[in-house]
Amino acid sequence: MSEVREKATLAKQAAAVLNNVTTDQKNDALVRMAERLVADTAAIIAANELDLQRGRDQGMSVSLQDRLALTPGRIESMAQALRDIAQLPDPIGDELDSFSRPNGIRIQKIRVPIGVVGMIYEARPNVTVDASALCLKTGNAVVLRGGSAALHTNARVVESLHAALRGSAVPADALQLIENADRSSVDEMLKLNGLLDVVIPRGGQSLITNVVMNATVPVIETGAGVCHTFVDASALPAMAESIAVNAKAQRPSVCNAMETLLVHAAYGEGDFARLAEALRAAGVEIRGCAETVRRLPWALPATAEDWGTEYNDYVVSLRIVSGLDEALAHIRQYGTMHSECIVTEDHANAERFLQEVDAAAVYHNASTRFTDGFEFGFGAEIGISTQKLHARGPMGLPALTSTKYRIYGNGQIRN
Amino acid sequence: MSEVREKATLAKQAAAVLNNVTTDQKNDALVRMAERLVADTAAIIAANELDLQRGRDQGMSVSLQDRLALTPGRIESMAQALRDIAQLPDPIGDELDSFSRPNGIRIQKIRVPIGVVGMIYEARPNVTVDASALCLKTGNAVVLRGGSAALHTNARVVESLHAALRGSAVPADALQLIENADRSSVDEMLKLNGLLDVVIPRGGQSLITNVVMNATVPVIETGAGVCHTFVDASALPAMAESIAVNAKAQRPSVCNAMETLLVHAAYGEGDFARLAEALRAAGVEIRGCAETVRRLPWALPATAEDWGTEYNDYVVSLRIVSGLDEALAHIRQYGTMHSECIVTEDHANAERFLQEVDAAAVYHNASTRFTDGFEFGFGAEIGISTQKLHARGPMGLPALTSTKYRIYGNGQIRN
Repeated sequence: MSEVREKATLAKQAAAVLNNVTTDQKNDALVRMAERLVADTAAIIAANELDLQRGRDQGMSVSLQDRLALTPGRIESMAQALRDIAQLPDPIGDELDSFSRPNGIRIQKIRVPIGVVGMIYEARPNVTVDASALCLKTGNAVVLRGGSAALHTNARVVESLHAALRGSAVPADALQLIENADRSSVDEMLKLNGLLDVVIPRGGQSLITNVVMNATVPVIETGAGVCHTFVDASALPAMAESIAVNAKAQRPSVCNAMETLLVHAAYGEGDFARLAEALRAAGVEIRGCAETVRRLPWALPATAEDWGTEYNDYVVSLRIVSGLDEALAHIRQYGTMHSECIVTEDHANAERFLQEVDAAAVYHNASTRFTDGFEFGFGAEIGISTQKLHARGPMGLPALTSTKYRIYGNGQIRN
Repeated sequence: MSEVREKATLAKQAAAVLNNVTTDQKNDALVRMAERLVADTAAIIAANELDLQRGRDQGMSVSLQDRLALTPGRIESMAQALRDIAQLPDPIGDELDSFSRPNGIRIQKIRVPIGVVGMIYEARPNVTVDASALCLKTGNAVVLRGGSAALHTNARVVESLHAALRGSAVPADALQLIENADRSSVDEMLKLNGLLDVVIPRGGQSLITNVVMNATVPVIETGAGVCHTFVDASALPAMAESIAVNAKAQRPSVCNAMETLLVHAAYGEGDFARLAEALRAAGVEIRGCAETVRRLPWALPATAEDWGTEYNDYVVSLRIVSGLDEALAHIRQYGTMHSECIVTEDHANAERFLQEVDAAAVYHNASTRFTDGFEFGFGAEIGISTQKLHARGPMGLPALTSTKYRIYGNGQIRN
């Protein structure tokens, strides 16, 4: 039996045990995991150094090295995330509905664990801890398949988590790490119907596309964001400037950052110039439509590909549009249904934008950067769903649950 | 452009229009659809006769002919389903959550249409009408791909529905029928990411398996049901008999019918014999474990395959188990997570069964035949989901919706 199948089978067996573990027992396990991570700091950093050394030998970029590197402070942050998740309310067992039928049967709809969650992700070792904690808190077993660049780190982290679980009521087998770094282990997970109940990819576009296009197991798609901000004719210039700069430049590498700025042609020409200068002052390169380049000789001309590009960088495409209709059409064509914003003082335009734009999160007069489980107050985030089934937008603990109908009768049969 | 891509593109454009159609306008369209179906009864029956003639020429079974055949009464039933769906509450626009954050942004979570639904189904022409009505009521466009055996009928039905829609506010393009009866049109739909938001298969196991294994578009899996009834030692014999006979024989062809009866070894031996005789008297063939065959010399011995078989017929597999643990293990091994029942007077055993059995619907002292959108009081049913994501169990109108976050600010940016 392959490593993937063997570990997924163990996870499925553990999921049945975990289904009967109480909230207090799960929280106790999370706290023990936190304590053990901190106690094992030196060993984890030593394992991390092996990964970093290998990365440097293979010419890993400095920014990737930074994402991979662990310090005592980062390990403490991972431990704190575990303690925070222990404090969150447990959604399992929540009664979502309850009703009786004329024949006397009583039907109750309750939240239950999904079962076994497969996580496929890239470099950052904190995902190993976060995903484990979120899955265990919701009564799910989890099969982790992290990036090969972090393999030593992930293995050592999971060793600590397993040691902690062995002192708890949560079966250690509920947490499985795939150590086969070959692409074949991902391919196998994607087809593991009957053992994995869902696969969640977290990482770059090529990872997500591979999962979506090849999985036969149900997928929760996360990630891609070509997000727009539309500055309407009536937008307050100071607000438009503040929101656009924040959406683009506060952290350009993330999926909820703005990639395209749309500006109403009737927005004041001086205000437009100041808006563009503010972006430029924040270090942002502007790639504009013909009218933009006419107004801003220093801007680069946008190519056809620019409108569909998620730069994840200090670059923005900028288009001057004739009005709300053209803005909506542009977003319909190029948006990825993640986060979209209108800055306007016109109430009717705002309502139309919020109604007609088809996206997980639609904003009136606020930065798209708020699309985030913590900013929404969920206390945790397993990812941001860009699909329309099951969960859409920031996913907190309830996104890791399913439901079950419990029906109570006293001998009812169907006529 | 292929027929599938062309029609899906039209459907997607129509979905954007439909998103702005009011509940009253949608209900008006549904009533018009009902009126037109009844008015076109003769033409629909003439088209249906072409399909039936072709079926008879090709040796179609009598039961399939019966499923395909339309009569004025059946067309009236289809029209009545449309009128009933018009009467149901519209879930679109429902506010599911609303909260403010410390920075002053207000977040509202509302129900929105999914977008474009692909339906892939087999012979019964009423699915053409039901699926159209349920999708349009929830603001979704729909691309229908029915079985080739019903192609003339479906085309004529859709012609009537289109005529009705042209007199309404719902765009006729929101309803598309694929007329290419070749398997290639199904294959193309399964890969139509970006145009179809979900594919829902309805039909036999091979149709569903093909969709699940080959779709890159998200799927809602429906259908397969190897459902069990466990008669515990303390079960009331009259209730056990009534539930078992109902679950098996009231309508054996459906997915919520019982396929395997599990009986506690300590259930009274005389009661056991009477239970088996009651099934036999209802025309049910029993395929039993060794102990069953020892007790009932007239029963056939079950083979290994019997335990995983969905007979959809007057056949049941019967196993005598040592107790609740063995019953739970059997269901874990062979169940399809559809509907499972315990008949018992022991409260602790009932609660343990309802807690531990992993299925869409778990019953205490009631027939599994109640797993149905109408029996649950939903007023409609698009299918019964046997997956754990998005929807589980009978799917009413809310299962055909997604959600969207609307965020209202006054200039908030992220720090």
